[in-house]
Amino acid sequence: MAKAVCTGFKASGIASGIKKNNQKDLGLIYTQTPAKAAGVFTRNQIQAAPVIVNRKRIQSGEAQAIVVNSGNANCCTGQQGMEDAFEMARLTAFGLGLGEEKTLVASTGVIGVKLPISKIKAALPRLVKALDSEGFENFAHAIMTTDTIAKIVTRHGRINGKEFTVTGVAKGSGMVCPNMATLLAFVCSDIDVQSDYLGYATYIAAERSFNRVNVDGDTSTNDMVLTLANGMSGAVVENSLHKASFQGVLDEVLKELSKMIVQDAEGATKCVDIKVMGAKSDEDAHRVASTIANSNLVKTAFFGEDANWGRILAAAGRAGVTLKSDRIDVFFNDVRMCHNGIGCGDMAENQATQVMKKPEYTVTVDLKLGSGQASMLTCDFSLDYVRINADYRS
Amino acid sequence: MAKAVCTGFKASGIASGIKKNNQKDLGLIYTQTPAKAAGVFTRNQIQAAPVIVNRKRIQSGEAQAIVVNSGNANCCTGQQGMEDAFEMARLTAFGLGLGEEKTLVASTGVIGVKLPISKIKAALPRLVKALDSEGFENFAHAIMTTDTIAKIVTRHGRINGKEFTVTGVAKGSGMVCPNMATLLAFVCSDIDVQSDYLGYATYIAAERSFNRVNVDGDTSTNDMVLTLANGMSGAVVENSLHKASFQGVLDEVLKELSKMIVQDAEGATKCVDIKVMGAKSDEDAHRVASTIANSNLVKTAFFGEDANWGRILAAAGRAGVTLKSDRIDVFFNDVRMCHNGIGCGDMAENQATQVMKKPEYTVTVDLKLGSGQASMLTCDFSLDYVRINADYRS
Repeated sequence: MAKAVCTGFKASGIASGIKKNNQKDLGLIYTQTPAKAAGVFTRNQIQAAPVIVNRKRIQSGEAQAIVVNSGNANCCTGQQGMEDAFEMARLTAFGLGLGEEKTLVASTGVIGVKLPISKIKAALPRLVKALDSEGFENFAHAIMTTDTIAKIVTRHGRINGKEFTVTGVAKGSGMVCPNMATLLAFVCSDIDVQSDYLGYATYIAAERSFNRVNVDGDTSTNDMVLTLANGMSGAVVENSLHKASFQGVLDEVLKELSKMIVQDAEGATKCVDIKVMGAKSDEDAHRVASTIANSNLVKTAFFGEDANWGRILAAAGRAGVTLKSDRIDVFFNDVRMCHNGIGCGDMAENQATQVMKKPEYTVTVDLKLGSGQASMLTCDFSLDYVRINADYRS
Repeated sequence: MAKAVCTGFKASGIASGIKKNNQKDLGLIYTQTPAKAAGVFTRNQIQAAPVIVNRKRIQSGEAQAIVVNSGNANCCTGQQGMEDAFEMARLTAFGLGLGEEKTLVASTGVIGVKLPISKIKAALPRLVKALDSEGFENFAHAIMTTDTIAKIVTRHGRINGKEFTVTGVAKGSGMVCPNMATLLAFVCSDIDVQSDYLGYATYIAAERSFNRVNVDGDTSTNDMVLTLANGMSGAVVENSLHKASFQGVLDEVLKELSKMIVQDAEGATKCVDIKVMGAKSDEDAHRVASTIANSNLVKTAFFGEDANWGRILAAAGRAGVTLKSDRIDVFFNDVRMCHNGIGCGDMAENQATQVMKKPEYTVTVDLKLGSGQASMLTCDFSLDYVRINADYRS
């Protein structure tokens, strides 16, 4: 993995004892000059304490540090949880010599258990000391829960001849379903940009990436995407061309991160792009794609490498969208399995079965009702998903 | 299992060769006098041929026979599928000496494969010959797909001193989610009732039973509940008291059948009643209960016997209903695990873990916002669910 370096940013990740077996569980991102800041948060009605804290702090449009723990979500922890989130930020700000309100917090892990704030307090001096411009990989490891690989993406762009960098780090492999930023993601950039626009760009990029992936239909209480832009590259966003340039790079980073999340989804062995075309509207297409992407029967068939296109039609049929079953075509990559609602026979089935043996492929559903289209990235539903989630807390 | 006998009705079930290994796959219900008939059908936009045939035929309000095959859904089979469904009814009517339009058809099994009508044609004389007033158990076996137990319920009521009987037979253990009659169910009664009212009563009973259970969030293309009432008991529904009496018995039969379906759900080891109370409205309560009942993370925790109440709150939080997290209580049977949104500690957790070892228990979520309530019956999500559905067609 390339070492992520973004001008003026440092990161670190250490083990504080929240997780067992000396696993990294505490991470810090710091920018040497204050950054413009924006956030996109879970739409779940049950929100963890750090979500509530950040929603308020981000309104200032500025931040200089983000402290994150894994192994405990600090959610459903009541007033004590709020105090612990504030304390975690306060201790971090103190260690960095910052104003408390410039520090954002995030937590991920089991819900309903009091945050072990004393362990965090004891570890914070070490965490600050470990800050390094090449520390993003340690940070990425520190925010993992059931993830099996660290997720970091760095991309570059250029404005008026000046190069800027966008580095994103994310975690998430379960409780992932599109209904807002469905995981933790932290994005650092050295671009110079207004905070209002940074918020808009972050929202758009999240819509195009994290909100187009599905693992299990569950959304989390702790999801957030935080973006910091410290301006240190000297690349300044001044007009709509510059905006397009930045948005393109930001989209790419978040899309790549969201693909990594699906690939690393709990127990997943397949990464399948569900494309719906020919819908009456893009919204209809999105509903159909989402319903297929979230169907347990479709996902278990992917796991079984069974080209059971009937389940794909059955899922489409319950998406709440008017369809004409005698027009629908279904493709596995370029193999047409179903034409005008009827199966294409054994040869197509054999070819489709070969496609399904691949780790990545595309299922295209053509409704032939209009020009609306949408796509969703999903994974299969494996025995290991059940194993992982039946035993999560033990 | 008690032999189901309902005056004037006969049933049969045989092996016609659609399924492998000489398993029963063709069933018939017949009433010696024409019956009032009503039906409730899938809301899935993709509908199997027999659903389309029955929707039309049921409008007459009368029927005398229902022929059902398992092993093939006759869905996504185009014009040929429609012709096969008509042919299946026609052949049955011919064998029974009935008008073709008095015969209803149903199919269940794999989608997208042409119905082997010649096998059905060859078997029909045997099927008719096998009709017997005690033949419901054979019929129940003939309509099973991944079901492991036959599902028959008989209950009795009394109107003006005259006893009437309601016998229901159902199949279903996957693709079960409330969004209409979520399976095949056939209900016979010897009560004397108008067909309009029979339709209403069937709809209400389905809402109270099949639409309150959840296995995997998928709904089928072939779902239907058909009710026949031949009037031969002499018990006549003439006023609202009689209606209440009949509705009570019908509800009981369908509720018992829907419970049997959850207990026999694919791979299920637990049957859990999700009760939501204190919602602003019954509708809100229903949305919360449904979302919890359909959460893969909640269902895998049930399988793992892990009292992970945080996942229950997280599911409630994405139901699209306004909640106050600091008011919510969660109970496992009578053990309170979460009070005002905060966990109740290790002793409660130990007690709740004991509750979760039982095959059946209740999870109660009190939102403390109003007086709305609802409940949903759900099952756990096990390794065997994935195994069964990954290999369904092989």
